[in-house]
Amino acid sequence: MSTKSVARGPTLRHGPDGAREEALDAIVIEEPLELRVDGDTLAITMRTPGHDHELAAGLLFSEGLVASRDDLGGMHHCGRPGDDGYGNTLEVTAAPGTKLGLERLDLARRGTLTTASCGVCGRRSIDDLLARSAQIDDDTTFGRDLIVSATARLAEAQPVFRETGGLHAAGVVGANGELLLAREDVGRHNAVDKVVGRLLLDGLLPARGRLLVVSGRTSFEIVLKAVLAGFPALVAVSAPTSLAVETARRAGLTLVGFSRGGSFNAYSCAERIRV
Amino acid sequence: MSTKSVARGPTLRHGPDGAREEALDAIVIEEPLELRVDGDTLAITMRTPGHDHELAAGLLFSEGLVASRDDLGGMHHCGRPGDDGYGNTLEVTAAPGTKLGLERLDLARRGTLTTASCGVCGRRSIDDLLARSAQIDDDTTFGRDLIVSATARLAEAQPVFRETGGLHAAGVVGANGELLLAREDVGRHNAVDKVVGRLLLDGLLPARGRLLVVSGRTSFEIVLKAVLAGFPALVAVSAPTSLAVETARRAGLTLVGFSRGGSFNAYSCAERIRV
Repeated sequence: MSTKSVARGPTLRHGPDGAREEALDAIVIEEPLELRVDGDTLAITMRTPGHDHELAAGLLFSEGLVASRDDLGGMHHCGRPGDDGYGNTLEVTAAPGTKLGLERLDLARRGTLTTASCGVCGRRSIDDLLARSAQIDDDTTFGRDLIVSATARLAEAQPVFRETGGLHAAGVVGANGELLLAREDVGRHNAVDKVVGRLLLDGLLPARGRLLVVSGRTSFEIVLKAVLAGFPALVAVSAPTSLAVETARRAGLTLVGFSRGGSFNAYSCAERIRV
Repeated sequence: MSTKSVARGPTLRHGPDGAREEALDAIVIEEPLELRVDGDTLAITMRTPGHDHELAAGLLFSEGLVASRDDLGGMHHCGRPGDDGYGNTLEVTAAPGTKLGLERLDLARRGTLTTASCGVCGRRSIDDLLARSAQIDDDTTFGRDLIVSATARLAEAQPVFRETGGLHAAGVVGANGELLLAREDVGRHNAVDKVVGRLLLDGLLPARGRLLVVSGRTSFEIVLKAVLAGFPALVAVSAPTSLAVETARRAGLTLVGFSRGGSFNAYSCAERIRV
């Protein structure tokens, strides 16, 4: 099984002066992961290998298929080490007495994503998705210095990004500003799923009193994952979307964007930020 | 129907000196689009409103449901203008005598994404996906200045990004270096789908002799979309993934990354680049 994050590949570098040079470039690894639940294929996602168990746990949690680690039986990569493609299929089994089957996902999806009636599409779907998560009820506050340092600490924990310039990161910051956990992945969603999955596997959800920090932009889906995991605050290096802001406001999540160089913008629930 | 790309929303700006200031921030709009084909929901994608017809055409093309504009009958937004959520459902009908139904997608998916046998997952799926596209057979060459200017021209055509910092862009560059088309979207894939969809609707696929330029990173899926559309070259501002490079090499696509400041790296088929 490959859990390498970086490959070396030949590249022809064209400099600004017209010079050309052959080089070995560090390139972030992207491989498909087929996620199987009790024998059925649930999803195929392109990801950076490594921390597959966390990715699976986080994805299953965000999709509403597992509520805690108690729902999970075992997880193992299929096939034999050395086989071509070994490591790219992960089989998840339910805990005894628990059912994580696709029917449940189909039900969930039927209730949310695919029944939106013509003309009110999406809005109702999003209402349904939000209804799955309670309002964030967490009176933790965060000092502005903690918010400023969160993105800086995440950047320090991105060795593969520094090497390749090619991937995203997510991390968890504790109430004292310490970076508890950080994961990198070629997919924005995957980095968050890995972090949430780690917390789930450690029995640390909901993530009360903690802050989720991400390296890129925040979309609806990233905010939804943060809310479902129970984070009171989400800090991002870059811009949010309109629906990210709206969703954060409705759920009671503190959403911060453009956190860089000591500045940041608070888009919702700014009262959690101590000056 | 909203086709605005930018919303204004209140934000609390925290400066590096601890000062705070309320402001109206420009925020890129993200809304769900439900895509229906002959009455069935095909997909719900989060996108920036506008150019929905192009997005639908490009997505259907990349999924293998339409081969040319001749397969498409009509496209219209469902509901009535003024209804809540109007503009977020697009109904696509097949041309007379053509069938674009979900069965075809199911078949395609069954043949590619969901039958990969345990242990060789993904690799075979990717082989199947690539088998759908012919090898790029296009002896067009591009001067290095054209490649350098492609990303610069795309940046000039990103008004919403300049305003919001929040979205991706894709564009088409002709053999003389002119930017023929550019689209912005909150989703990387959507920006490419809109561009490909526009070419399809104009009867300009395959995109022989032209160059696809994208604002961000290149993953497997972006390369696959470029190959399926018949572009001989793909130029990106940022890093490729390992699978993007491998896929480009196998398909005969010239893949360029890190095109900025007059420099760039060529990862595959560098012989199409004239010095």
